Amino acid sequence: MNEQCIFCQMVKDRSMVPHWLVESDRALAFLDIHPIRKGHTLVIPKSHVVDMADVTEADWTAVAGLTARVLNILRRKLGTTGENVFIASGPGSEQSVAHLHVHVIPRTPDDDLHWNDWWATKVFTPPQAELVSLAQRIRS
Amino acid sequence: MNEQCIFCQMVKDRSMVPHWLVESDRALAFLDIHPIRKGHTLVIPKSHVVDMADVTEADWTAVAGLTARVLNILRRKLGTTGENVFIASGPGSEQSVAHLHVHVIPRTPDDDLHWNDWWATKVFTPPQAELVSLAQRIRS
Repeated sequence: MNEQCIFCQMVKDRSMVPHWLVESDRALAFLDIHPIRKGHTLVIPKSHVVDMADVTEADWTAVAGLTARVLNILRRKLGTTGENVFIASGPGSEQSVAHLHVHVIPRTPDDDLHWNDWWATKVFTPPQAELVSLAQRIRS
Repeated sequence: MNEQCIFCQMVKDRSMVPHWLVESDRALAFLDIHPIRKGHTLVIPKSHVVDMADVTEADWTAVAGLTARVLNILRRKLGTTGENVFIASGPGSEQSVAHLHVHVIPRTPDDDLHWNDWWATKVFTPPQAELVSLAQRIRS
């Protein structure tokens, strides 16, 4: 536990998180207090872990497993049909809280979130030779 | 295998994906041909799975595990410091290919991606009582 970490404090003192949803031995899910869609949920490891490069296999498996449970619960309880799962992890990633958290954002057709409108402004198409060369460098 | 699925075809015929990066028994990672950042990688289950509501525990654990491996490789090989992990899963989610895929987008400070600029246009802050009531409904 990191005494200064708001998510660690919530794990320790459950009265701070009356908007919790579900938990397992190593992970906790609760509603995001600043959602971008109704039902927007965060899934965190109970141990203090800053980002994906720090997380142990046991904690990451637990967080990933609870994420899958959460989205199935949200579909059933909210009638949503899909989800976006999002993580910002590590320096430069625009991570908001320095304790690993997975966003689960429930979606329905015509919910007007339009993530792809933003995505389309960023996408590019490199020549295939450049991709193959980059892959070889990463594999080496 | 789904014969019409481009990702299933890539799993079956590796010559279609010379830009592959790493694989495990149940999962494969390769560079996205339409990246939003250099090194942008997709991680898929080798079995045909449409979305997160369909995926077996074994396949999801494998995909999540390979995702963690990939981002550590990208940090080491590209010198990136963080990542965004993103999934669009199911109807309404703006999923592009109907075979589950995890985006791993390497990040560095000052890379000018500015995901939060989009996020900030969507975020809202419901009253706490509303969040607690919604959580009770989802838990029930």
